[in-house]
Amino acid sequence: MEIQYVIDTLFAIFAMTLIIFMVPGFAMLEAGLVRTKNVSAVLTVNVMIYAVASMAFLLIGYTYAFGGWDHQDGISKWAFFMFQMAFVGKTINIMSGGVSERSRILPLVVFTIIMGAFIYPTAVNLTWGANFLSGTALDISGMYDLAGSTVIHSTGGWALLAAIMIMGPRTGRYKNSKIHVIPASNIPLVTLGALLLWIGWFGFNGGSVGTISSKESADTVALTIMNTNTAGLSGAIIAWLLIYIRYRKFDITMILNGALGGLVAVTAGPDLYDIYTPIVVGAVGGALVVFAIPLFDKLRLDDPVGALSVHLVNGIWGTLAVGIFTDKSLLLQSKGIVVVGVLVFTVSFVTIYILNKLIQLRANDEEQFQGLDTVECGVESYPEFKRTI
Amino acid sequence: MEIQYVIDTLFAIFAMTLIIFMVPGFAMLEAGLVRTKNVSAVLTVNVMIYAVASMAFLLIGYTYAFGGWDHQDGISKWAFFMFQMAFVGKTINIMSGGVSERSRILPLVVFTIIMGAFIYPTAVNLTWGANFLSGTALDISGMYDLAGSTVIHSTGGWALLAAIMIMGPRTGRYKNSKIHVIPASNIPLVTLGALLLWIGWFGFNGGSVGTISSKESADTVALTIMNTNTAGLSGAIIAWLLIYIRYRKFDITMILNGALGGLVAVTAGPDLYDIYTPIVVGAVGGALVVFAIPLFDKLRLDDPVGALSVHLVNGIWGTLAVGIFTDKSLLLQSKGIVVVGVLVFTVSFVTIYILNKLIQLRANDEEQFQGLDTVECGVESYPEFKRTI
Amino acid sequence: MEIQYVIDTLFAIFAMTLIIFMVPGFAMLEAGLVRTKNVSAVLTVNVMIYAVASMAFLLIGYTYAFGGWDHQDGISKWAFFMFQMAFVGKTINIMSGGVSERSRILPLVVFTIIMGAFIYPTAVNLTWGANFLSGTALDISGMYDLAGSTVIHSTGGWALLAAIMIMGPRTGRYKNSKIHVIPASNIPLVTLGALLLWIGWFGFNGGSVGTISSKESADTVALTIMNTNTAGLSGAIIAWLLIYIRYRKFDITMILNGALGGLVAVTAGPDLYDIYTPIVVGAVGGALVVFAIPLFDKLRLDDPVGALSVHLVNGIWGTLAVGIFTDKSLLLQSKGIVVVGVLVFTVSFVTIYILNKLIQLRANDEEQFQGLDTVECGVESYPEFKRTI
Repeated sequence: MEIQYVIDTLFAIFAMTLIIFMVPGFAMLEAGLVRTKNVSAVLTVNVMIYAVASMAFLLIGYTYAFGGWDHQDGISKWAFFMFQMAFVGKTINIMSGGVSERSRILPLVVFTIIMGAFIYPTAVNLTWGANFLSGTALDISGMYDLAGSTVIHSTGGWALLAAIMIMGPRTGRYKNSKIHVIPASNIPLVTLGALLLWIGWFGFNGGSVGTISSKESADTVALTIMNTNTAGLSGAIIAWLLIYIRYRKFDITMILNGALGGLVAVTAGPDLYDIYTPIVVGAVGGALVVFAIPLFDKLRLDDPVGALSVHLVNGIWGTLAVGIFTDKSLLLQSKGIVVVGVLVFTVSFVTIYILNKLIQLRANDEEQFQGLDTVECGVESYPEFKRTI
Repeated sequence: MEIQYVIDTLFAIFAMTLIIFMVPGFAMLEAGLVRTKNVSAVLTVNVMIYAVASMAFLLIGYTYAFGGWDHQDGISKWAFFMFQMAFVGKTINIMSGGVSERSRILPLVVFTIIMGAFIYPTAVNLTWGANFLSGTALDISGMYDLAGSTVIHSTGGWALLAAIMIMGPRTGRYKNSKIHVIPASNIPLVTLGALLLWIGWFGFNGGSVGTISSKESADTVALTIMNTNTAGLSGAIIAWLLIYIRYRKFDITMILNGALGGLVAVTAGPDLYDIYTPIVVGAVGGALVVFAIPLFDKLRLDDPVGALSVHLVNGIWGTLAVGIFTDKSLLLQSKGIVVVGVLVFTVSFVTIYILNKLIQLRANDEEQFQGLDTVECGVESYPEFKRTI
Repeated sequence: MEIQYVIDTLFAIFAMTLIIFMVPGFAMLEAGLVRTKNVSAVLTVNVMIYAVASMAFLLIGYTYAFGGWDHQDGISKWAFFMFQMAFVGKTINIMSGGVSERSRILPLVVFTIIMGAFIYPTAVNLTWGANFLSGTALDISGMYDLAGSTVIHSTGGWALLAAIMIMGPRTGRYKNSKIHVIPASNIPLVTLGALLLWIGWFGFNGGSVGTISSKESADTVALTIMNTNTAGLSGAIIAWLLIYIRYRKFDITMILNGALGGLVAVTAGPDLYDIYTPIVVGAVGGALVVFAIPLFDKLRLDDPVGALSVHLVNGIWGTLAVGIFTDKSLLLQSKGIVVVGVLVFTVSFVTIYILNKLIQLRANDEEQFQGLDTVECGVESYPEFKRTI
């Protein structure tokens, strides 16, 4: 009916807008977490990702993922495109954030084109889209993943894992078998960024329900947003508790990463849970972040923003959680995780490996020492402030 | 009707989302107003309040305030919950902001649980909720308070007043009978925060109309938002004028606090006024802020962010204004102010007094001198910037 | 029909809210682009503009522009007012940004009143409003300008050009026939501000369609938002490419200004284009910014934030683009540009000239050297950070 078309289009526009707030969200979060000398570079990468990934998705990726522009008729096709386009940069934000402070920008831009036009659309094609493996042994359309614990967050996480393995850690990060702690340079930006992401998640998950124009779907959307939020609350609280019990300190970056871990974890099935289950899903998510961050450091996988812990680990956990807490098949959930993981990791690894050979992804030691702001951007982030380092 | 249920649910989700922007709003405002050495602590408190107060409200406070989950049927009950949940942290933000730079975090978290589960829900119960005093001499359901000049802002303000009386001023603030001025450390954050709060207010007050799905209610919502905004404009202008006439300076923090004062003042009745009355209500609100801030300093009630002036004084003024400028009873408005005030102040005072005895709310002189970022969080807010103090 | 009235009112409120995010957007962008010693002054100007321009529009400008409060009946008149009010400050933000670091605040406030009550409403009157020149030789109602490439952006740009001509450059900017480069002081703020503006544009352009309550109009709104975004993407990419090819650097402020240039350019006709045309419109827009910024410096028109290039040049280009890429008359588009341009430039020039005589708009050399934060506001923006300059 016309009125439902109108309302669902308005809802998609609203949800898309909230997701676009994740662009400044990621940008501020990552700019706050890195050292002052790399802040302009990180911000440039974030803006370039939004521009380039969205354009690649518009020109190539979208029709590949969904098989064309006219595959649905419940809402305006332009609104549906915008909603889907809002997702694509996120996967690459996850990857770029985790290789901050040591990656040159041009190769990242090239990777962004490939990811936005081919890799991410492949993940979408297999799950929410045209499904070119339909009916084959690799068909994973049975996996339930409402808003992308696997399709978005693990996808970004697997690409990041490949990148970290190829690029290695920041120079000086692991010296003489010790871990050199590098503190976040701007905590207000970290906080602002994480909270904007949190708000964006309402659009991400709520909008993924796809329709709000019946009583039933309105309830589902509202439940989805409520459960999304609850998992974030729970992840924050658990991360706080675990750190506080151990160190008697309130570690704001860990609390925020715990919240984000909970949000990633609930993303696969917020519409399926009752209102208490997200407390558990989010708590496990927050705890996983607290334990995974030092673990990746032990494995010498250097990830300045904790993206592997937040997005990869919790993307997996969240997808499994749907198999555990609902009547969806844990086996099909696991199959989806594995197929997407193997596919994205392999293709990303090969792509980044070749890119690194052709146009050197890693900034050299001297460039890292100087900072990427001057080397890559010629723009200092805070030129008037005297610095301690 | 189904379509109205859908539209009102969508509207509640939209309004709720705007209110959640007040979480970064308060966080940035308060982080900008305090000294650099306390910024991480302030941000941590803001995030913890959102997490803990919302969870306490979900598990206990909400059903206590409204008598259950199924008390209304015009919109999705999950959307209604989210809208109400978005309010609860605000009352505690008001309180925590005013005791910044001297309060330890753990006791604040404990107080947040009590406030989110019991104190604030009691204020809601008596006014917008189940009303357990219905029919008694203390029944204040006759007070008109659309979006909480009393229920939210005064409630937070009374709790703050109790906290300040128990905790005393920041060490060194009032020395040798002089007032030691402590300037805000980051004016862009102050501005960003205040403007996010302003935007959030559209959801706060507009959403409090409760429905938008008829022509009449759509007009009421739009009028409410317009009047809310007008009072903010007016408060900013008056605060500027008063300071400018006196000192020939444009004091941005005072202008922003004037705007916030106007916004608090209009919150009780923006749906009842014509489009010119909010100019008066907001102007008085802005003027009250300008005069109240030095007055509280004279009373040695140390409030680093001006929360008593903005929220308590204008919460009272705004509630009275409904009795003055509309046909609502000024007597019933006054009764509501007094009952909520006595109740919240007394319970908060006793709670904070006991908390302070058990787990010491006030950071000691040495901790305050060092700054709460290192003492409480182990996380400096801007570790790479050389500081003048 | 009632339900359409409701939906269109809700949509107007949503769109208006997005536009209000441009208030912190402009404030953060401009605060990040100027030197630390002028940041509080810039923020004060932005807040004052919102307060004073909106109030002047409420009391005088709105009824002048539209001929009264009851000129339309498809949506709530209060929502329509708020949507229109959200625009007015933008024109003045454009002007105030371009004279940053050398303008005293009081005369700007006086100009804001005149602009908000008379100059901008005149531009609206002639185009979207009551049209007092209807039927005369100067009737420009044939110009198509959906959301204000001319009415908003060029209007602000012409006022800025007049102001720069009268006030001259910042002291020391052009010394010994050399251009003294003054770097932006805070890149995260610049990025945050530009991205908030970008998001606000969805409301600006999408909301200007005026209705979303039919299938056709819902498609138009969604297409408008999609095309708006595409032009921003395209402007960012081209600005990056041009600078990168020339200097091998990623210049984030130029990339962001390129995006804004694309967004301004598409604003006249995003509803008329197919989904590929905005790529061209935005690319030309981004390129114009890259070439215009050094050109204005050669002309000794000192514009610290690039507002002439972004808003004036692209306002003109965008209005012409509608004549080039659609079946609208290029002649009528040009006529509109010229009439609005001559009118706004002349009136602004005279107004600012007189203002400058009466209450001196330009801060003197000593005041500029000291910085406007201390001189005008008595409030340092970052008092605790040691500075290099």
